Amino acid sequence: MPQLRKDPITQRWVIIATERAARPTDFVRIQEEVNGQTFCPFCEGREDLTPPEIYAIGRPGRSPNSPGWEVRVVPNKYPALRIEGTTEIVHDGLFAYMDGVGAHEVIIETPDHFSHLGVLPPEHVAKVIQAYRERYLDLDRDERFQYLLLFRNHGRTAGASLSHPHSQLIALPIVPKQVREELEAAQHHFGRHARCIYCEILAQEIEAGNRIVTENEQFVAFEPFASRFPFETWIMPKRHQATFGSIEDQGIQALAEILQGTLYRLAVVLDNPPYNFIIHSLPYNETAEHFYHWHIEIMPRLTQVAGFEWGTGFYINPVVPEDASRFLREAKAPEVVEVVPARIHGEVGE
Amino acid sequence: MPQLRKDPITQRWVIIATERAARPTDFVRIQEEVNGQTFCPFCEGREDLTPPEIYAIGRPGRSPNSPGWEVRVVPNKYPALRIEGTTEIVHDGLFAYMDGVGAHEVIIETPDHFSHLGVLPPEHVAKVIQAYRERYLDLDRDERFQYLLLFRNHGRTAGASLSHPHSQLIALPIVPKQVREELEAAQHHFGRHARCIYCEILAQEIEAGNRIVTENEQFVAFEPFASRFPFETWIMPKRHQATFGSIEDQGIQALAEILQGTLYRLAVVLDNPPYNFIIHSLPYNETAEHFYHWHIEIMPRLTQVAGFEWGTGFYINPVVPEDASRFLREAKAPEVVEVVPARIHGEVGE
Repeated sequence: MPQLRKDPITQRWVIIATERAARPTDFVRIQEEVNGQTFCPFCEGREDLTPPEIYAIGRPGRSPNSPGWEVRVVPNKYPALRIEGTTEIVHDGLFAYMDGVGAHEVIIETPDHFSHLGVLPPEHVAKVIQAYRERYLDLDRDERFQYLLLFRNHGRTAGASLSHPHSQLIALPIVPKQVREELEAAQHHFGRHARCIYCEILAQEIEAGNRIVTENEQFVAFEPFASRFPFETWIMPKRHQATFGSIEDQGIQALAEILQGTLYRLAVVLDNPPYNFIIHSLPYNETAEHFYHWHIEIMPRLTQVAGFEWGTGFYINPVVPEDASRFLREAKAPEVVEVVPARIHGEVGE
Repeated sequence: MPQLRKDPITQRWVIIATERAARPTDFVRIQEEVNGQTFCPFCEGREDLTPPEIYAIGRPGRSPNSPGWEVRVVPNKYPALRIEGTTEIVHDGLFAYMDGVGAHEVIIETPDHFSHLGVLPPEHVAKVIQAYRERYLDLDRDERFQYLLLFRNHGRTAGASLSHPHSQLIALPIVPKQVREELEAAQHHFGRHARCIYCEILAQEIEAGNRIVTENEQFVAFEPFASRFPFETWIMPKRHQATFGSIEDQGIQALAEILQGTLYRLAVVLDNPPYNFIIHSLPYNETAEHFYHWHIEIMPRLTQVAGFEWGTGFYINPVVPEDASRFLREAKAPEVVEVVPARIHGEVGE
């Protein structure tokens, strides 16, 4: 059983995933497995290589765990957390821990091994987002869960162990410290100004214009003023909305369009870079509807210079956000973007 | 001039290093430069390839910027911050920024390109630490600086752009958010228990014993209970001491011994892994002597699975700290450890 442990100083919770690599030599082995792409368990026709599916969008009348799907959600075969267990906290002097209870699922975004969210038609991307919302709302019903982390790793450098297009979700019995901090900061601002800080930032960004990448009726994509990473890009709903789970069908269409468009621009300008994106949303059992504002943070992984950031929370960004935004705004769209896994930075060895 | 920008939500400061890579294609170029090891500017006899030295330990009577040194400190040729400038904060609506003023120096640890802190004699490592202390105390005299970040990146995966053994320091006009949080947590604990939380953790770790790696009269190396990374190792002085700059000569000897020994164990068990280490110390102008406790955090960079951690502060660690500590405790010392740069994970392409 994995364990959730709390750092006595920072109060940060960490998953100690006991059922993953256990011996030092396992790290070498992991790298080799990553390189072997011969049998991709996420490709169509290999449905028996994953745990049974939880949700799918596909051909009418299709049987579960058979071909004919467009988007497919399955439990992670090597989950960081387990669905069985309690949320009782055990204390040992200064230390505290609990069962590593949670859900860890994979959203397989397309049957096409060589595709990518940045080149799929927006209508298909909308189905991926629909799957996100479906799982978001379903896991909200389990009262043990306090937070849903929806994220995507693209490219090995960004942590993707399989190159077949997929996102992941982790349902947590605790709220991550960084989310808690965002909430507190937004609450503090609301207390002083009676306005959502995200709405205010958006208004200032739209007025300034020099960090905007693209926008449509419902969403804006922009480079944050204090971007931590080169070409860090946020996508935010224009209308105040605290929870990703509240997104309407029309919002899904608009989000699909801007997400695909933004990832496409990043792929063109940065030659299909590795990246992570994370959906920041209100924790499940919070009522802070008026001061929090859900959004997506896209972080391209371009620099290794960022070595010590993990340990200090201190970032050096070698690209001025206003320059990054200009490059992305002016991105010329070639007729076809080749997105071959071998071209992903950091995957050259594959 | 680089800029320091403050995130309006998290209050985190970021360095926007305008004089570094400016165009998207520059990222490709950076990688190529990293791979070209033909002219190492840190090797003995190439002293004219670095900016003029600030400090050195070497042969008596040696002239500055000439051979005969053992440890040499020079300004970073491509500094993230500039020494000229003011610390005036400019506001623009919700945003705040200031000149990117600070010092960025390189501590060249040995003339030997192929050596490593883990295999150098402890007497030599003591000279490196002596250089750390010297620069720590000297930069404390510049009243613009609030914090000194002393760190080491080992291996390309950990952000080292040159493989010649070196550490770095960055003197900052602000205190990084994560340091501020550590301080506040320690203060909170002191307020409730009238004891230093680090002293208490150390006492509990020594009593339990199962996360200790090694110790000597003055220092303990151990795996933290809630380690964020596999084989994360902290080195902490046994006696309460808030500031790294207060270390005495005898302490330097003891620290050199345990630091060399710990890095050696990590190199043996994990086949010379990439790592970062960071010295956590009290900010320059703080008087919190009684509740903060300086220490070193060593973070091996073994997993790419840690993709989204940057964006969430949420960590998954696939190795149980008690297992990691056992592997490191039991590390058998071969007669000679080969430390060839090509064997560093992630540097295979060099």
